[in-house]
Amino acid sequence: MPELLLDKTICLRNIERMARKAADHRVSFRPHCKTHQSAEIAGWFRDFGVSKITVSSYPMAAYFAKNGWNDILVAFPFHPGDMKTMDQIGKECSVSVLLDNPETVSFLRRADRKMDYYIDIDTGYGRTGVRSDDITQLENIIRKAERIPALTFSGFYCHAGNSYKTVNNRQREEIHGKAIADLKELKSVFRAYSPMALYGDTPNCSTQNDFGGIDEITPGNFVFYDLAQRSIGSCETGNIAVSMLCPVVGKYNRGKRLLVHGGAVHFSKQTVNIGGRNVFGEVVRMDRNGWVELSPGCFLTGICQEHGILENSGQLFDTTRVGDKILILPPHSCLTANLMRKYKTLDGEIIHTFNSTV
Amino acid sequence: MPELLLDKTICLRNIERMARKAADHRVSFRPHCKTHQSAEIAGWFRDFGVSKITVSSYPMAAYFAKNGWNDILVAFPFHPGDMKTMDQIGKECSVSVLLDNPETVSFLRRADRKMDYYIDIDTGYGRTGVRSDDITQLENIIRKAERIPALTFSGFYCHAGNSYKTVNNRQREEIHGKAIADLKELKSVFRAYSPMALYGDTPNCSTQNDFGGIDEITPGNFVFYDLAQRSIGSCETGNIAVSMLCPVVGKYNRGKRLLVHGGAVHFSKQTVNIGGRNVFGEVVRMDRNGWVELSPGCFLTGICQEHGILENSGQLFDTTRVGDKILILPPHSCLTANLMRKYKTLDGEIIHTFNSTV
Repeated sequence: MPELLLDKTICLRNIERMARKAADHRVSFRPHCKTHQSAEIAGWFRDFGVSKITVSSYPMAAYFAKNGWNDILVAFPFHPGDMKTMDQIGKECSVSVLLDNPETVSFLRRADRKMDYYIDIDTGYGRTGVRSDDITQLENIIRKAERIPALTFSGFYCHAGNSYKTVNNRQREEIHGKAIADLKELKSVFRAYSPMALYGDTPNCSTQNDFGGIDEITPGNFVFYDLAQRSIGSCETGNIAVSMLCPVVGKYNRGKRLLVHGGAVHFSKQTVNIGGRNVFGEVVRMDRNGWVELSPGCFLTGICQEHGILENSGQLFDTTRVGDKILILPPHSCLTANLMRKYKTLDGEIIHTFNSTV
Repeated sequence: MPELLLDKTICLRNIERMARKAADHRVSFRPHCKTHQSAEIAGWFRDFGVSKITVSSYPMAAYFAKNGWNDILVAFPFHPGDMKTMDQIGKECSVSVLLDNPETVSFLRRADRKMDYYIDIDTGYGRTGVRSDDITQLENIIRKAERIPALTFSGFYCHAGNSYKTVNNRQREEIHGKAIADLKELKSVFRAYSPMALYGDTPNCSTQNDFGGIDEITPGNFVFYDLAQRSIGSCETGNIAVSMLCPVVGKYNRGKRLLVHGGAVHFSKQTVNIGGRNVFGEVVRMDRNGWVELSPGCFLTGICQEHGILENSGQLFDTTRVGDKILILPPHSCLTANLMRKYKTLDGEIIHTFNSTV
């Protein structure tokens, strides 16, 4: 079976770099745990002064609360189906909710303990959130929430995920610049509430350097990075902390095709554009300092449920035998980690996740 | 949280239809269990006379062996990393392996009990298998295997997965016609061994009617079907047995955008082309006879880790409130079932899977 290898040294370096960047810019650091989904890895952040986290669902919040975290933001719009889980977590820790419409506020009338809420702000991504220029809607939410004693308005949260579509720093600067300008403006408009501004996806937090007006950054993927982040420009191959170790199960002369055990139930089915081609992974080799690209590159060109296909595998084809194992970097480490449910460090230690337990 | 609903009536109808088709064509029926991955659902096949199954990995074979199945074909190329699991399964049941190169045969010298093997045949799909015209390679495998007393050559296995790229029956007829002609020819060339011919993906088994020379069919996806199968022409909406039930968590006037809890960690990230557009799912409503398409159609147009986005949701937008739940058919039911790990029947019964237990 394929295994998900974790290079702990690279991972710790990624954590340290982002923690130092937060400190240098005098912003608080509330890392998103949706990528690693692991209490053990979240624990590594504590050594860098981290005491609060972000997660992407209420069950995931419950898992981290059980594992000793007592300040958790669920960066996913609250909905009434989550009420029960949220109430249970609230007994153990401070859980903050994300809201972006007045209708949802009403559901929180039933909440039986105090909680902070943040308003999700859309500065151009167009996924969730109140548009940053829709002051009326923001006032509606705040006014409605004021009638619910359990709720305290803590500030604004923004995921400028349009950064994921950028290909150069000029584009990122534009998206980032608008996001922090909008958040600054909102802090000014609503200054009577002394709102915080929470912000920061991995591309922007990795590449940008102006965090004026931001109080807390919340990136997640940087803990591992992946091929998608590399293609955006957030990292280099040497910063990627996870790699799939896949057994070679077939070798076919026509098209120098190698077949590995490693499919959509292991990698997920995300592609990344490398050199004009959409691929499902890139083969690397391991050296003392991390993963190293092959030259010329060799890519996972097709994927089925359990099968991974490497067409035109070039030199690798000649040097690889059935039964060997090869390393393949995933396009999207969050989805691969979610499917694999555990990591094996280079020392052979197994690290479990939220998904190992449910 | 999103839930994966299973309409047991539709599912049983799908099983019955395929079992009857097998009986009508006098071919044996060895359904593939990689789609449902559930011992309970596999049990439903027993009522239709099924006593042997196909799976896609050795751990999955172990799960079904533990659940009382004693004739299992692992339709994935054997590799040495699977030896230990295979040996364990062999204590409980008859496990058949799939081979497509002489190198792998050598690894089976270590096998400690008798087993059947099938040779994987490539009739044009180009994924795994010995090319059907490569008689030399087939002879090499058989000759090498003859030196290993544990191995018995049982026949040929072919997954003509190029059927998944077809858009009309003429194309499917061509692929299917070549596959069964090639298998017939191989049975004739190797008649000294009285080899069986195992064949049959869901598109071909659903739409084709000439199974002359085939001994056993092994389709899997037909148990649930999905949007991809519908787009190929294997089924209609009313034959799809599973649907995701997703809470609506956001509503945004611009672009009539609805946001649901239901993302890549629930649906996977497969798209299906509907009306010239790649989408991640289609909204349906439920009536007495199954799922019914909306008119005009409404589609999952974007997907993130936890978020599902429905742009231009039309009439659904006007009639849906935050907190409601909507039904969304998945593009690829195998990948969705693998991620969701359990089903809820329309009666509220929870059905577990292989993935619930590991």
